Amino acid sequence: MPQLNENFLKLEKNYLFINIAKKVKAFSEANPDADIIRMGIGDVTLPIAKCVVDAMKKGADEMGVKETFKGYEDSGAGYDFLKEAVSGYYKSFGVEVKPSEIRINDGAKSDCGNIVDIFGNDNVVLITDPAYPVYVDTNRMNGRKVIFADSNEENGFAAMPDENVHADLIYLCSPNNPTGSVYTADQLRVWIDYAIKNDAVIIYDSAYEAFITEDGIPRSIYAIEGARKCAIEMCSLSKTAGFTGMRCGYTVIPDELVFKSSDGQDVSISQLWGRRQGSKFNGVSYPVQCAAAAVFSEEGIRQTRENIKYYQQNAAVIAAALDELGIKYTGGKNSPYIWLKCPNGMGSWEFFDKLLEEANVVGTPGAGFGKNGEGWFRLTAFGDADRTKEAMERIKKMLG
Amino acid sequence: MPQLNENFLKLEKNYLFINIAKKVKAFSEANPDADIIRMGIGDVTLPIAKCVVDAMKKGADEMGVKETFKGYEDSGAGYDFLKEAVSGYYKSFGVEVKPSEIRINDGAKSDCGNIVDIFGNDNVVLITDPAYPVYVDTNRMNGRKVIFADSNEENGFAAMPDENVHADLIYLCSPNNPTGSVYTADQLRVWIDYAIKNDAVIIYDSAYEAFITEDGIPRSIYAIEGARKCAIEMCSLSKTAGFTGMRCGYTVIPDELVFKSSDGQDVSISQLWGRRQGSKFNGVSYPVQCAAAAVFSEEGIRQTRENIKYYQQNAAVIAAALDELGIKYTGGKNSPYIWLKCPNGMGSWEFFDKLLEEANVVGTPGAGFGKNGEGWFRLTAFGDADRTKEAMERIKKMLG
Repeated sequence: MPQLNENFLKLEKNYLFINIAKKVKAFSEANPDADIIRMGIGDVTLPIAKCVVDAMKKGADEMGVKETFKGYEDSGAGYDFLKEAVSGYYKSFGVEVKPSEIRINDGAKSDCGNIVDIFGNDNVVLITDPAYPVYVDTNRMNGRKVIFADSNEENGFAAMPDENVHADLIYLCSPNNPTGSVYTADQLRVWIDYAIKNDAVIIYDSAYEAFITEDGIPRSIYAIEGARKCAIEMCSLSKTAGFTGMRCGYTVIPDELVFKSSDGQDVSISQLWGRRQGSKFNGVSYPVQCAAAAVFSEEGIRQTRENIKYYQQNAAVIAAALDELGIKYTGGKNSPYIWLKCPNGMGSWEFFDKLLEEANVVGTPGAGFGKNGEGWFRLTAFGDADRTKEAMERIKKMLG
Repeated sequence: MPQLNENFLKLEKNYLFINIAKKVKAFSEANPDADIIRMGIGDVTLPIAKCVVDAMKKGADEMGVKETFKGYEDSGAGYDFLKEAVSGYYKSFGVEVKPSEIRINDGAKSDCGNIVDIFGNDNVVLITDPAYPVYVDTNRMNGRKVIFADSNEENGFAAMPDENVHADLIYLCSPNNPTGSVYTADQLRVWIDYAIKNDAVIIYDSAYEAFITEDGIPRSIYAIEGARKCAIEMCSLSKTAGFTGMRCGYTVIPDELVFKSSDGQDVSISQLWGRRQGSKFNGVSYPVQCAAAAVFSEEGIRQTRENIKYYQQNAAVIAAALDELGIKYTGGKNSPYIWLKCPNGMGSWEFFDKLLEEANVVGTPGAGFGKNGEGWFRLTAFGDADRTKEAMERIKKMLG
């Protein structure tokens, strides 16, 4: 009889968003006439920019001609043209990352989930709570001890480290999913100092960096000194350029990220991860990489920034309605997420049900992101502008 | 200090094909005029069929229009249209697999490497030797005990189970990489009986099934009764349709694959794997899935079979040259690989060097695939027809 990985049996049976999809499906089947507005899962709705589509089609055409056909990538870490484009993008906001420090992947979720493979199971993992469920689930799948740093109303949902607590692996996400909060440069400096003091690795999820508009909010952890000695950064084109269905992201591991093995050898984290990927990954589809590179072209940046502005206007609409209702929230600024306090002391799932049943609006219950999420609720600005307005009118009517 | 997964430090430093690439690069830099013919890595060279390219471009166009744009897939397991196409493909050679039992992935290597996550680390893993290095490496990364079943000259490189040895997880690959050998239906039946008797799971790699031409050689393990109770099958479009750079494959987990947890619960392997993928994977690029579905259309099958015939003719050229030289080999028939005995008792790497230096031909040393590979050597039929002929002429001259 094969021994199963029984850590899985201790997890929530389903990934959060699969549970929500089931609830919505059941409601929709029972109420076929309900006009449901989805502001739950953080999925984009605007199409891919034209120059990006054109680049993918050009890549597809190359695959159809013997002279330009591409088979396996030598490294599986991404074509140089794309790594150079990502490096150039970092440079555009003042951060130096070498192309050789970048690995292209099929989306940040894969790397974020798989990176745990290269670490031992006895590490203490520190995750801010609430958090993207992937951080917690993927560590629990390996049976790791997870401790939490509280993000809550008092600290504006931006948890800071406790100097009395030791951690080996630290997950940070800014702009934050689900709370929309951001770390300032000073706050990140505190985390980096803490990581260096603890000889810890920060796994930094910057998937929402393209939504940062305010000065002084870092777009990358490498904007802060010391980060190259302690941080892995993961980013994705999903939110930057609407790639949720295209699937492409990147992971940065600086050359300085070297730790000792138990017998005192220097081990490069980049090499360790490369060895893992060499056996378990074969690179990203060539036409997808062509499309991704086009995102970072001048025209690509221009077109994708227009889409981001569209979503930012939705965020403003949501925020204005909540202001009108006197409901507290974080995010909406520098972030596509609005994290609101459920009105009248309602629980997260209670509010989810009420919103679905009475306003036919789907959001995400904060409790799904951790204990500090209880009583809070996430709405996304990724929808259609008119539908977002309509949803907020319904919510105002429901609560007014 | 983060604890590293030190199992990695016990592995070969690099994945086999990365080592070969480095050797070839060094030779090429030292001998810039050498006209190198690559028959090492099992990569295809013919372009993607036109109807498949067209389907990808249509998918890309849909991504550029709001009404047809696709974001996250609900399940991440593949669109129904593709799962139905794969199911129909199975039906075309007489095997029933439900679309809901199929999960689409970004290539068989990913699933083949990641599947170990859902099993405990105390399983006994049985791998035929020689084998595709991913099977061994990914289990050793988790610190699992790996035992081997010998494939060798005596058994035609088709290892059979030893009834006195217990195993929990079994890796089989037919047509085999690297040896080109195939299991008959009778041989597979013996393996399935063994697996059921041991309550074991077979992980069956059928990546080369499209190369089977002889009757009586199963294209899927599910062609054999009992397989649905013990086998996971993984296949890929890489060799079927030249998708090494497009990245798409599929994994089949039958509903019957249910095992007990240590406290006696029934656990569905499909659900366990779905939970893993739900947290660590976000589905395959939509235009890639469109391309993959086109492979299974009538026109797609016709175009891709032409490419396979082309490679089969290369295999025949290689085989004829080896026959002429009196060199023993397996494969070439039902397989794009020819597995030859190094002439004059040479070691695998010795022959690799000689072939590279004297004939400027790159192959893969059998020793890279396990201990029974020592003294053997793999050539692939995936090259250009003229170059394949040229390579065999050079080898004949070198050894003649």
